[in-house]
Amino acid sequence: MRVLQVNLEERSYPIYIGRQLLSDAAIFQQSITGKQVLIVTNTTIAPLYLEKLRNLLSTIPEVAMLILPDGEQYKQLDMINKIYDELLRSKHHRTTTLIALGGGVIGDMVGFAAATYQRGVNYIQVPTTLLSQVDSSVGGKTGVNHPAGKNMIGAFYQPKAVMIDTDVLDTLPPREFSAGVAEIIKYGLISDAGFFAWLEENMSLLMQRDREALAHAIEISCRTKAGIVAMDEYEGGVRALLNFGHTFGHAIEAHEGYGQWLHGEAVASGMVIAATLSVHRGGLSDGELARICELLTRASLPIHPPATMQVADFLEKMQLDKKVMTGKIRYILLESIGAAVVVDNVGIAEIEQAIAGCR
Amino acid sequence: MRVLQVNLEERSYPIYIGRQLLSDAAIFQQSITGKQVLIVTNTTIAPLYLEKLRNLLSTIPEVAMLILPDGEQYKQLDMINKIYDELLRSKHHRTTTLIALGGGVIGDMVGFAAATYQRGVNYIQVPTTLLSQVDSSVGGKTGVNHPAGKNMIGAFYQPKAVMIDTDVLDTLPPREFSAGVAEIIKYGLISDAGFFAWLEENMSLLMQRDREALAHAIEISCRTKAGIVAMDEYEGGVRALLNFGHTFGHAIEAHEGYGQWLHGEAVASGMVIAATLSVHRGGLSDGELARICELLTRASLPIHPPATMQVADFLEKMQLDKKVMTGKIRYILLESIGAAVVVDNVGIAEIEQAIAGCR
Repeated sequence: MRVLQVNLEERSYPIYIGRQLLSDAAIFQQSITGKQVLIVTNTTIAPLYLEKLRNLLSTIPEVAMLILPDGEQYKQLDMINKIYDELLRSKHHRTTTLIALGGGVIGDMVGFAAATYQRGVNYIQVPTTLLSQVDSSVGGKTGVNHPAGKNMIGAFYQPKAVMIDTDVLDTLPPREFSAGVAEIIKYGLISDAGFFAWLEENMSLLMQRDREALAHAIEISCRTKAGIVAMDEYEGGVRALLNFGHTFGHAIEAHEGYGQWLHGEAVASGMVIAATLSVHRGGLSDGELARICELLTRASLPIHPPATMQVADFLEKMQLDKKVMTGKIRYILLESIGAAVVVDNVGIAEIEQAIAGCR
Repeated sequence: MRVLQVNLEERSYPIYIGRQLLSDAAIFQQSITGKQVLIVTNTTIAPLYLEKLRNLLSTIPEVAMLILPDGEQYKQLDMINKIYDELLRSKHHRTTTLIALGGGVIGDMVGFAAATYQRGVNYIQVPTTLLSQVDSSVGGKTGVNHPAGKNMIGAFYQPKAVMIDTDVLDTLPPREFSAGVAEIIKYGLISDAGFFAWLEENMSLLMQRDREALAHAIEISCRTKAGIVAMDEYEGGVRALLNFGHTFGHAIEAHEGYGQWLHGEAVASGMVIAATLSVHRGGLSDGELARICELLTRASLPIHPPATMQVADFLEKMQLDKKVMTGKIRYILLESIGAAVVVDNVGIAEIEQAIAGCR
């Protein structure tokens, strides 16, 4: 088992990465201080892992469970209300611990419910998708979507622990696995050329879900994210780099309808647009752009935006992206593979050119 | 103008107390950093002060306004959604500032919307009731009620500033004015025997809304609260003392229906129950209890629980009060006027006896 630490003073917490974590009662018990637990999961994960986790918590006096529908389209305030209702029905106090057993949608929603139930209770992330293991379970971004925009409602609220059991990836569908690889590639692109090169060498192993390759890729990803979050918990500066590809990606998700394009797929296409823009600006080389497209393709990820989506659709959707700053959009661009920068003087013509260049 | 400071490191903020603050553009401008403001108020306050505040912000490029229905029964998640909708309709970014123009209900809701819109934006409290001026506008407790309990959904989230204009009290109905005095009396009871004695001497002036007496009482109240909040922002310890009378008070509000008994009225009756319990326990003297009842009566506040409410009703409602700790209720009791303690070994028989003693 590998253990990382997210260093945030009194809000610091461990990330455990390894096999069989869902059989390790001790690491769960040390993160649960009260007598009450609510496990929240979804209809896909419940038949696979809920009973296992429930059995692991047999020493906890009161364990409630809630199963929500699966999918990004359910990441909304109504579901948060269902969590509140269950907590109140079961008479859970301020000392309760919520456990998010699922992917990013479950993690974001349970984190937000924990942030806002009785002004804040403890929660533990048990991410069951590769995407949530390497991204959303770490860093304390919680929340739900609004019809007018993704993640428009939420809070920064850190978990007590993150339990990454790599064995649960056995049951992950290939498309979702690839979506997770997109975020892994992102870490190489924004801050670690060596890791990007390692991914080029090991992508075949990774796509075969080789245990060692997976554990390494997850550890480097979580370490990179934890380091950036420790520097900038509330996204006032450097944390914005984690949004590489996301401004375009969110526009794709919003246009196609949440859940049609997986988040990681939209980010993959978004990263290609951002990389193309970076080439036009004279930072990234054509050769690097080609390497990025090749690596994404080997991970079975899209490198073109949706055929149905016009440049005008991008611009419309991007206007309300939450990373808009005082009406001006900031873009994360690459100076080279492994080096990202924030730029805020990009004109609409450049955006149009970059999107057109990715057709 | 008097200025206090709530000391919470990077979350510190000023409280301004004085006349004509709603005509002082400078103090508002120095607390607004972005180009967008949303003023949220209610149907009672809007005709009185909304235009005045709107005019004061004439230098802010984008000022949106939202008027919600007035009353504790509207302190619910649906109204938070209305605030989100307005923010998104007006395309407000992370740099927006929300202004809560109203009493505790508006303040709590706007604070919660600010805590959760795009994972947190700035907000300013402009409390228009005496109760919110001396209590809820200071300290960052935000949230809404749930059918199963008061303030069950919320967050700790501090404002950027609190603007207490004592002139707005001119339009406050007498019953609401008294409700505010209940919380003022509470500060004397829990931590300041000298202030309690001052209130005994000056209650007539205060009830006549004498400017000097009011400003003094508000300042001492806010100073006391700010000091306690600075010691214990997240209510892990000493901040619980501020809940003196509130466990019983919340039970009264929940039983009667939110908005039937005003919060301050319920707290007044709750403080008498807690004081009676304190006498039974051998801390407070009979003479002190009599002084408390007399002072509350002079402030036109109830000292008996609702006639319709049985002891069993109290016990039922108290089970889900949010200050319940691991299933055990903690009570704030008085050792003497000016000295409160937290006690967690109170039996149901004692509670019954105390409630019966207040009939």
